[in-house]
Amino acid sequence: MSVRVSAEEHRGFGERMVARMARLGSLCVGIDPHVGLLEAWDLPDEAASLREFSLRTIDALWEHTAAFKPQSAFFERHGSAGIAVLEEVLETCRQAGVPVILDVKRGDIGSTMGAYAQAYQSGPLRAEAMTVSPYLGPRSLRPTALSAAQGGRGLFVLALTSNPEGHELQHMGEDTSVAGRVIEEVTRWNIEIEPEGVGPFGLVVGATIGDAARRLGLDLSSFPGIFLAPGIGAQGGGGAEVAEVFGAARSRVLASASRSVLAGGPAASGLREAFERTRDIVTPQ
Amino acid sequence: MSVRVSAEEHRGFGERMVARMARLGSLCVGIDPHVGLLEAWDLPDEAASLREFSLRTIDALWEHTAAFKPQSAFFERHGSAGIAVLEEVLETCRQAGVPVILDVKRGDIGSTMGAYAQAYQSGPLRAEAMTVSPYLGPRSLRPTALSAAQGGRGLFVLALTSNPEGHELQHMGEDTSVAGRVIEEVTRWNIEIEPEGVGPFGLVVGATIGDAARRLGLDLSSFPGIFLAPGIGAQGGGGAEVAEVFGAARSRVLASASRSVLAGGPAASGLREAFERTRDIVTPQ
Repeated sequence: MSVRVSAEEHRGFGERMVARMARLGSLCVGIDPHVGLLEAWDLPDEAASLREFSLRTIDALWEHTAAFKPQSAFFERHGSAGIAVLEEVLETCRQAGVPVILDVKRGDIGSTMGAYAQAYQSGPLRAEAMTVSPYLGPRSLRPTALSAAQGGRGLFVLALTSNPEGHELQHMGEDTSVAGRVIEEVTRWNIEIEPEGVGPFGLVVGATIGDAARRLGLDLSSFPGIFLAPGIGAQGGGGAEVAEVFGAARSRVLASASRSVLAGGPAASGLREAFERTRDIVTPQ
Repeated sequence: MSVRVSAEEHRGFGERMVARMARLGSLCVGIDPHVGLLEAWDLPDEAASLREFSLRTIDALWEHTAAFKPQSAFFERHGSAGIAVLEEVLETCRQAGVPVILDVKRGDIGSTMGAYAQAYQSGPLRAEAMTVSPYLGPRSLRPTALSAAQGGRGLFVLALTSNPEGHELQHMGEDTSVAGRVIEEVTRWNIEIEPEGVGPFGLVVGATIGDAARRLGLDLSSFPGIFLAPGIGAQGGGGAEVAEVFGAARSRVLASASRSVLAGGPAASGLREAFERTRDIVTPQ
């Protein structure tokens, strides 16, 4: 196995993730220490509980999950004490060799975006990939994409989300939609960096957007990168929903679940059962 | 003066800011401990320098500036140690009674956006206002706006930015543009909360967008809230640019400058000179 892992390590983020998903299934576990979940785990709403919650989750699932996706908002809620926990979560995942997609949805311009790139690609909060938001223009994210690839990391750009308010902005446009414009740009970066295989730059596309992509004239199956698809389990998405949205691209879909897995805790056995149930729903047979 | 301040405090964020700007001028000082500025101030690139840089800036300008705008990216770069400095910066400004607009450009959905709202409206990182990004649909930000107003706080939503890549997404649309849709929604919230005066919800509109708003058919002067206008000074914007973009709304424009003021440091006298020069350029006579 060490040979296979080391071969994985020499490839870019997209290729590494595809190999991991073929081996471990398509499920990415969100680390979302939401106040309601803390309560369900009998933990008070304080920074020490975020640590307990996150480390238990990692401990139960690190050998099984394709990736972890901590949601920064739940750590930021506790200020610097929460961010110190997030640092420890990231370090624990590094030690375990599990890729982390840090869900921060940052988006800014020029040297400010450069500072975010440093924060999440080389600073104490570095992760294999981060999520970013393209409101300031998809091209404003290109330097962050290139520095990610240079360090063997990835980037996930918000494209089509499944929240009820998502369409009002993402579907706007004449010849092409906002989401279409984002997909065009991220496709270009992937071809530039990885002309043959699966590129390191992914898209966030909701698992429950139904036929929205098709109605917008977008062919997701030709996108040469990974999809990060939230909305699995608790948000109503299952295998059929993933198949409808992504079709032939299904093997490149990293399906993300939080509550539906985390509600199985705090016991490791409960987390693993919930994980397996959800993984088997979303992993192509 | 204490009577006037306490009368200010009973009004909403928009009205308070308009009163402060009439009293102190239209300039908001960015607290951007950019690595290049740290170097110019002879400070090493470490968390302790962020503290030195930020507290010196606050100390020199708190009696003069309409508001401070710390840029979170430069603090996040140093992980939890940087965020601990940001907490101290916010607490120092609270003690001094200077409003802070925390530039974080967060944007997410449902309970995740709720966690961001708690982080920046009531947690250890609370500020008078935060910046947010509408990619997930402007309506997804409504609960955050309402909780801001309930606590007497404000919110600035990204609308039209002046970076060269900004137009590619923000100008898209048929009957109306993406930026137009954002402005429509934020206008609605303001009318709901403050039917007569200046509402607590602002827009981020670049000082150097030229005639972009007019070309998109948008009349900024009728927007019933504050504009946060970055791009002053170092980025090329001056009084003429502000007048061109905002016209009759100029008294509701909070112009934000970072480098052009901060490059005057580290001496307090240099910071104050640079501040006064920039303030006089952007404040309507």
